[in-house]
Amino acid sequence: MNSRELVELAQQLRVDSVRASAAAGSGHPTSSMSAADLMAVLLANHLRYDFDRPDHPGNDRFVLSKGHASPLLYSAYKAAGAIDDAELLTFRKLGSRLEGHPTPRLPWVETATGSLGQGLPVGVGIALAGKRLDRTDYRVYVLCGDSELAEGSVWEAAEHASYEHLDNLTAIVDVNRLGQRGPTRHGHDLDAYARRFQAFGWHTIEVDGHDVDAIDRAYGEALSTRGQPTAVLARTLKGKGVEGVQDREGLHGKPLPDADEAIAELGGPRNLRVYVQEPPTARLLHAVREEHVELPRFDRGDEVATRDAYGKALAALGTGRGDVVALDGEVSDSTRSEAFAKEHPERFFECYIAEQQMVAGAVGIASRGWVPYASTFAAFLTRAYDFIRMASISGAGINLVGSHAGVAIGQDGPSQMGLEDLAMFRAVHGSTVLYPCDANQTAHLVAAMADLDGIRYLRTSRGKSQVIYGPDEEFPVGGCKVLRSSGTDRLTLVAAGVTVPEALAAADALDREGIQVRVIDLYSVKPVDRLTLRQAAEETGCLVTVEDHHQEGGLGDAVLEPFLDGRPMPRLVRLAVRTMPGSAAPDQQLHAAGIDAESIAAAVQLLVEQAVVR
Amino acid sequence: MNSRELVELAQQLRVDSVRASAAAGSGHPTSSMSAADLMAVLLANHLRYDFDRPDHPGNDRFVLSKGHASPLLYSAYKAAGAIDDAELLTFRKLGSRLEGHPTPRLPWVETATGSLGQGLPVGVGIALAGKRLDRTDYRVYVLCGDSELAEGSVWEAAEHASYEHLDNLTAIVDVNRLGQRGPTRHGHDLDAYARRFQAFGWHTIEVDGHDVDAIDRAYGEALSTRGQPTAVLARTLKGKGVEGVQDREGLHGKPLPDADEAIAELGGPRNLRVYVQEPPTARLLHAVREEHVELPRFDRGDEVATRDAYGKALAALGTGRGDVVALDGEVSDSTRSEAFAKEHPERFFECYIAEQQMVAGAVGIASRGWVPYASTFAAFLTRAYDFIRMASISGAGINLVGSHAGVAIGQDGPSQMGLEDLAMFRAVHGSTVLYPCDANQTAHLVAAMADLDGIRYLRTSRGKSQVIYGPDEEFPVGGCKVLRSSGTDRLTLVAAGVTVPEALAAADALDREGIQVRVIDLYSVKPVDRLTLRQAAEETGCLVTVEDHHQEGGLGDAVLEPFLDGRPMPRLVRLAVRTMPGSAAPDQQLHAAGIDAESIAAAVQLLVEQAVVR
Repeated sequence: MNSRELVELAQQLRVDSVRASAAAGSGHPTSSMSAADLMAVLLANHLRYDFDRPDHPGNDRFVLSKGHASPLLYSAYKAAGAIDDAELLTFRKLGSRLEGHPTPRLPWVETATGSLGQGLPVGVGIALAGKRLDRTDYRVYVLCGDSELAEGSVWEAAEHASYEHLDNLTAIVDVNRLGQRGPTRHGHDLDAYARRFQAFGWHTIEVDGHDVDAIDRAYGEALSTRGQPTAVLARTLKGKGVEGVQDREGLHGKPLPDADEAIAELGGPRNLRVYVQEPPTARLLHAVREEHVELPRFDRGDEVATRDAYGKALAALGTGRGDVVALDGEVSDSTRSEAFAKEHPERFFECYIAEQQMVAGAVGIASRGWVPYASTFAAFLTRAYDFIRMASISGAGINLVGSHAGVAIGQDGPSQMGLEDLAMFRAVHGSTVLYPCDANQTAHLVAAMADLDGIRYLRTSRGKSQVIYGPDEEFPVGGCKVLRSSGTDRLTLVAAGVTVPEALAAADALDREGIQVRVIDLYSVKPVDRLTLRQAAEETGCLVTVEDHHQEGGLGDAVLEPFLDGRPMPRLVRLAVRTMPGSAAPDQQLHAAGIDAESIAAAVQLLVEQAVVR
Repeated sequence: MNSRELVELAQQLRVDSVRASAAAGSGHPTSSMSAADLMAVLLANHLRYDFDRPDHPGNDRFVLSKGHASPLLYSAYKAAGAIDDAELLTFRKLGSRLEGHPTPRLPWVETATGSLGQGLPVGVGIALAGKRLDRTDYRVYVLCGDSELAEGSVWEAAEHASYEHLDNLTAIVDVNRLGQRGPTRHGHDLDAYARRFQAFGWHTIEVDGHDVDAIDRAYGEALSTRGQPTAVLARTLKGKGVEGVQDREGLHGKPLPDADEAIAELGGPRNLRVYVQEPPTARLLHAVREEHVELPRFDRGDEVATRDAYGKALAALGTGRGDVVALDGEVSDSTRSEAFAKEHPERFFECYIAEQQMVAGAVGIASRGWVPYASTFAAFLTRAYDFIRMASISGAGINLVGSHAGVAIGQDGPSQMGLEDLAMFRAVHGSTVLYPCDANQTAHLVAAMADLDGIRYLRTSRGKSQVIYGPDEEFPVGGCKVLRSSGTDRLTLVAAGVTVPEALAAADALDREGIQVRVIDLYSVKPVDRLTLRQAAEETGCLVTVEDHHQEGGLGDAVLEPFLDGRPMPRLVRLAVRTMPGSAAPDQQLHAAGIDAESIAAAVQLLVEQAVVR
């Protein structure tokens, strides 16, 4: 498009943003209007995208990091012919795909946004996939707000992008100087942002964000910049084009006071149709995958840490499947993802100590059809909870693996102990939570999680434990293993991970005292095996959960899932970590927390003495 | 101390770090050895600190952001006479205060560290308190690792510190070029770090981190730098002083292979005693506080959003108590903390969109004896989960307030909905979780939470709701309100926040059908009112929880707390958000989630028809 047409298109995007927000009675038109010229030029002259084939491997990728400017995005979709005007006006209404903040319910949306500072990190993931996995020359454009540059995650992304020389990535920053509450820290000081991006290794271009020719040149310069990502820093006015709202405070997230008047001031509705450039032909590298996976096999009785089994299984999975990739937060020697890194360096991504970028990178890579496994200490995945939450809204299929779970890590102390991770992951919509206790079980679950939907979490342990299952045993997700059972079980011990051997030892000790108890290995913490838990409840009357996790949100809550429809309940006893641990040896930690074999046996004996159980 | 003595002191710190780690059989001596000269010069020539009076208001503050270098810290404590050699050798042992990573169990530790990238943000909080609250000229020194500069939170802190002109803050970066797994991104390229800090508005000094005179001059330059914080970037060698480990990979977090040989190479044990400078006299500004708080009063029947009540109550609390401060993540117009900001601008901290820094700032400010309230959308507090987790290890007394909870926010969609927050906060050790349903209740809880221990979370709602309690009603933490009760209740509806009016409406509708149900307002989600819940269980036999939260970890799990000792259980039914919401009006959202009055009544009727309940 030429300049005159671009100006017209930008006005149309503004008018449609105003109209959609007016129809909804809510939304962010002023935040859309500031970026309308930036979007118009991109859509008409630079983006290569087949709206009929959003899965086209050659498509450029666009991420609206300032997700509240969704009216602008949807107006652009309309201009491109992807949606019609009637659908545009369903914005924010029940059942509409056009949500307040964009989600992949729309086939052209790569990732859900709306929590600020996440679009660029995910964009980095997509650009990484383009460079190192797809090896296709699609470009990734991320439209950011200026306010969100205060989020540290943006600078994790900036660092990662320049380190990986992502010249296929362009950040477009809509510097409209006004946040939700008022002025940003740096106002219209584009240089302030330029200094920061440059220091982090980016090429920067400062531009008048309402000058379509200047924008056009800036995008061209970004395209021709080699070896580093580019940030186009655009000076804009919030509410641009409507005098009554332009550059004014107090108008964030509100429809314009008088939509009709504003539309008239913007020159009235238009009906320009943009013919977006076709993407070049490209192929999906991971379309070819071998499906035969030779998982590692461990001998019963050997002492193997589940984190070691994780590393070996992941490496084997990577050999069998060309679509599996791994990321780590600079602790691959601890999580053992280094085993994958050694065998498949081309599919391994070192994210350094930046857990938000690691998870966002996984989301971006997954959006391109790859199957990422991202690992760090379980404790440090809490750093990325907002990203995990948003990934679930995106419907992203990512595998997250947290090592060094619980007090069982020993001397390093509470800062390194994952004690909230089960609660955190269980509360994520549609998640799967797995917690293996031995090496063969770990290997099977690592392979099984690859093909699940949504967020999948695997919790591994630091210390060695005895292999108790044979290598050919099956471990369906949603299943469990009944390890001790008799007709005279007086209660059921439900354990997972490090508490399984403790529960078994307790059961054996109790058996010597003439007290039989059932033992269940609940390796699938979400979903749980409803039938087996119900049967145990009916037959033994009492479930005693034993977990190396805080008492809230973990195993103890998970076992309730089969009983929440009003049916008769078993009695419940919960053994969990209730005090703040310090430093001590692993066995001392388990004992202090009351979750070792001795403590379990003592608790059961007390229940028997008090005649709480049958 | 003169140069020769400083060199000796640094060697002593190295030797003691090696000895402590050897005695423990674990620990991070090499990470301690790189920073020994930096620590020696600080301790002997710059820090002003009374180890006998860690609460001295004039004390400088030191934060070991690279918490794994705890042997260095403890060796410094020994050199300062704060601990003796026998205690030094208890490092990492059961019961010792000298944990693997430092915590405030030691009176000289300001904040727990060990999750990297948190020390500087907390240091910014302390420096802010010094400048704007204590108005005392203590300095804050933060010793950082180079690896942790990859964390975005460091750049949130950098941005905040320069924006607030924190020239009382010095970051000392131990650039030893090696992370846990291997080399950092930038190795010994000090300029790379300098460019970044400068771009973020800091003064930087590059220095040989093993040249005590150069370090001494750098600290002096930092002290005389006005109007901006200083980063001292020090080139160091990991394991400095012992040829076999110096600057070598693969030796992170391990005792030296031969401690005796290493100690000999370091010149053997020394017993230097450092006489740390006394702090200047200073007074605590918040020691003087009025205790009379005039809370806002709301009339029964009026429609008031709990977020509005929060803002008004917080402003009133700030008037009554001079020790209360507020922070917000650039959404004070939404959370309503703007009411506090208007009345008490000198005690309000705008943190922009940087939730990690906001929470870390609160932790730092709380460490100086102030009572911070930090607010943003409930959804965005997930961004700071690792900081919240660490704050609980610090024993920090902070109030966190999450607005816009649940699907009830309506059109903005899932990215803005707090649906995991109750689970997240309940799983934090020692936390308090409050969720008021009306304005008077909110006001009372806002005041009550100020004096609790640990992490306190208050969940507020976006939409208006009817005031159902009088302004003089009491709402003890750990209590609840029985709002409907009869001798013929067939079950108990347990609600909180937005589901309380829905439960009441359902109860009234059911009553008209001849079905009586009890209704409990469980405003205190942690701790819960055990006696009242047990009584309801005994008398009605079934607890139906109704919550605007995912089904895991929230209200439904909270009501189980009184029953986890093996006593007979009531039947349980859980109404919660089970599907991924989109955009829709608030009432449509509640209906779609099955938690509005109509859905509740229907669920109860089904239970009655199925004869699940009495």
